[in-house]
Amino acid sequence: MSKPVCLIILYDGKEHAKQQPKLLGAAENALGLREFIESHGYEVIATSDKEGENSEFERNLERAEIIITTPFWPGYVTKERMAKAPNLKICITAGVGSDHISLDTANERGISVVEVTGSNVQSVAEHVIMTMLILIRNYNEGHYQALSGGWDVAAVAKNEWDIEGKVISTIGAGRIGYRVLERLVAFNPKKLYYYDYQDLPAEAVKKINDASRLFNGVDNILERKESLEDIARESDIITINCPLYEGTRGLWNEKYISLMKPGAFLVNTARGAICNENDVAKAVNAGHIQYGGDVWPVQPARKDAPWRSMHYPISSGDSENLDTSRGYSSDGAFVGNAMTIHCSGTSLDAQARYSAGVKDILTEFFNKTYNYRPQDIICIDGDYYTKAYGQRTKK
Amino acid sequence: MSKPVCLIILYDGKEHAKQQPKLLGAAENALGLREFIESHGYEVIATSDKEGENSEFERNLERAEIIITTPFWPGYVTKERMAKAPNLKICITAGVGSDHISLDTANERGISVVEVTGSNVQSVAEHVIMTMLILIRNYNEGHYQALSGGWDVAAVAKNEWDIEGKVISTIGAGRIGYRVLERLVAFNPKKLYYYDYQDLPAEAVKKINDASRLFNGVDNILERKESLEDIARESDIITINCPLYEGTRGLWNEKYISLMKPGAFLVNTARGAICNENDVAKAVNAGHIQYGGDVWPVQPARKDAPWRSMHYPISSGDSENLDTSRGYSSDGAFVGNAMTIHCSGTSLDAQARYSAGVKDILTEFFNKTYNYRPQDIICIDGDYYTKAYGQRTKK
Repeated sequence: MSKPVCLIILYDGKEHAKQQPKLLGAAENALGLREFIESHGYEVIATSDKEGENSEFERNLERAEIIITTPFWPGYVTKERMAKAPNLKICITAGVGSDHISLDTANERGISVVEVTGSNVQSVAEHVIMTMLILIRNYNEGHYQALSGGWDVAAVAKNEWDIEGKVISTIGAGRIGYRVLERLVAFNPKKLYYYDYQDLPAEAVKKINDASRLFNGVDNILERKESLEDIARESDIITINCPLYEGTRGLWNEKYISLMKPGAFLVNTARGAICNENDVAKAVNAGHIQYGGDVWPVQPARKDAPWRSMHYPISSGDSENLDTSRGYSSDGAFVGNAMTIHCSGTSLDAQARYSAGVKDILTEFFNKTYNYRPQDIICIDGDYYTKAYGQRTKK
Repeated sequence: MSKPVCLIILYDGKEHAKQQPKLLGAAENALGLREFIESHGYEVIATSDKEGENSEFERNLERAEIIITTPFWPGYVTKERMAKAPNLKICITAGVGSDHISLDTANERGISVVEVTGSNVQSVAEHVIMTMLILIRNYNEGHYQALSGGWDVAAVAKNEWDIEGKVISTIGAGRIGYRVLERLVAFNPKKLYYYDYQDLPAEAVKKINDASRLFNGVDNILERKESLEDIARESDIITINCPLYEGTRGLWNEKYISLMKPGAFLVNTARGAICNENDVAKAVNAGHIQYGGDVWPVQPARKDAPWRSMHYPISSGDSENLDTSRGYSSDGAFVGNAMTIHCSGTSLDAQARYSAGVKDILTEFFNKTYNYRPQDIICIDGDYYTKAYGQRTKK
C-alpha cells in the first residue's frame, strides 16, 4: 500500500541551504539524492528532527526500510529504536564512523550497516593539522588582538611555538591518522609516533620515512609505540584518530592526562567520548594542557558543555586596548581551546564525495546486488564484516 | 667618556615577560643578550618606546653605535633618524626583513645592515599553512559556534572546503615560499604554482615533484608562472612570500584582486604594504575574497585599520543560540578574516634562534672580524650585498 520509507537524518540547512546549493549534507537537500531514491519507489523523509518519541525520526521508524544519517548530526539508532523499525534493512552513514548505531542489535536483526569509507579522511586530516597549528601558534589570541584593536605581541608570543622540532603522536594510524602523519613530515618534527593494535604495513612506514629523508634528511622519523603511558609522557602533541568502541570509550582520562607534559597539546577529531570530558576541561582550565577538535561526547553539544568554555587561565593582557564591539568580550581570547562544532568531515568537497558514495551503496541495495565496497561494510548478514570492527567488540 | 650605546627596540613584554622567561624577544629580556653586550663595553638601552621625537629611541640615537630591532615591533630607521645617529655603525634585524631601514641611506653612510636569515622561516611557513586552513575550513565560524553555545553545522559547512584538489600559488619562492610549497605537497593539491624573478634551482623543483609522486602519485605538481594575471585568475589560494621593496609596494591591488576567483583565498605573511589595504578590505567585505595574514602596512596597526574589522557579509545564522557572555558579540564570527597581529615569526622557538643569530653577528662585530654569514648581509661597505636586494633597488 504505502511506499517504503527512506528516512534521512541530516543537519538543518535553513537559509544556508538556499545560499549554497552545494550544501548536499543538509536535510533540505537530502544529499542531492531525493529524486534518485524516489525513482526506486521509496518515499523520502529527510529531517533534522531526531530527539524524543515525537520527533519525525521516531514517528517514521515503522515504515523505514533505509535509514541514512551522518556523524555531524547523528540520528542515534539505538536498540529501542530498532525495535520500532520492523522493516529496517540497511543503515547508511553519510560519512565515516557508525558508532551512533547499535551494531550488536543490527547484527541480531540482520540489518546491514554501511558507511562511505574514505569520503572525508582528507578533510579530517586537514582539520587535525589546522587544530594543531591554531593551538601551537596561539592563533586565538593573535586573532583576538587583531579584531579587538590590540597589539600585544608578547601576549601571543609567550604561548606560541613551532611544530618543527616537536614530538608528535597519533593514537590510531588508520586512514585518518596515517594522513595526519603524511601531512606532518614536511614540518620537520623531531619524531612521529603511532599507537595502534597492529603495525602499519612496511610500505606505509617506508613512505613516511622516505618523505622525511627527502624533506629534512632525517632517517627513521616514524616509530610505533606500544605503551600509551610512553605516548603521554614523551609527546609535545598528541592526536586521537581511532574509532569509538567499548575499548576506547573514556580512554584518554586523568590517568594519561596527568602524565602529559605541561603545556602539551591534545587534538581529537575522532569521537568526543574517547576522552573524558571533565578530565580534559579540568586540565585545560588548570593550564596543564591545550585541547582542540570538533567532536563532542553527545552531539549537538549541550549549551553548558565544559569544552565550550574551557580555556587557559591567561588574561589577554592589554585590556585597555579591548574593543568589545568588535566580536570579542572583554574576557579575551579562549587560549588553549580550539574547539569547533562537528564540521571537519563535512566540507563541501567532502559532501560531494559522501553523497556519491551513498548513491553507490543505494544502487547496490536497490539492484539487490549488494556488492558494497568491502571497506564500506560494518555489519552484513548478521555479523561484523571487518577485522577492525570485530576486534572492537572483543575488547 | 660615556660608553657607546647598543639601542634595542623590541615589543613590550610586561607581565608576559615575567611569566615566560623564554620570551627573549621582549624589550625587558633584551634578547637575553644584555650581559653579553655590556661585557663588550656597551651600554644597553632596550625599549619599546619608538615613535616620535621624545621617544627613548630618538633620544638615544646620538650615542647609538648599534641598533637592533625586530619586524614585529619595528624601530623605523629612516633617513632622518640616521642623520641624528652620527656614531651608528650597524643595524641588526632580530628576525628577517629589513624594510624598516632606509637601506640607501645606510649605504651612503657605510652603515652595515645585517639580519638573521632563516631564523624564523619555518615559523612563518607554518603560519601560512595555518592561515590557509583557518580560512578554507571556516574555523572562525566553527569556533564561534562552539564558544557561543551554537550548533549550526550548515553555517560552517556552507563556506568550508578542503585544501586537497585546489590550485595554490606562491608569489615569491624564497626561503619562506619554498617551505610553504614543501608543506603543501602532502595535502594533495591540484597544482602548485610559483612566481619569482628567477627559476627555482632544478634540485628544489625535483624535491617538490618527488614528494608529490611519493605522496599522491602525481607528476610535475610544481610549475613556474610568468604572469601575475594568470596567478590571479587560476588560483584558489594565493600566498604572498616576497620581500617588500619599491617593486612590490602596493603590488596586489584592485587590478589583480578583481581577477581572482569568487571566494578565493589570499594569505600574506610577508609585509602588509605589498597589498593595497583598502582594495583588500573592500573585496573581503563584498564577499569576493577571503584574506588572512599577520602583517600590516604600518605596525602596530592603528585601531581603526580596515583589516581589523573586514569580514564576509555572512550572518552567523542561529542567532538564538548566541551567548554574548562567552567571548563573541552577537555580530558573530569574522568569516573571511584570519588576521593576527605580527607574530608569525616570533614564536618562542624562533626567538631562541634569532637571539642566537644576533649574538653571532655581534660577536663578529665586537671582534672586528666582520665575517657575517653571507646570507645575513643586506648592506655592507656602502653597497647592497646580495643579488636579490640589488635587483630590488633596480626595479
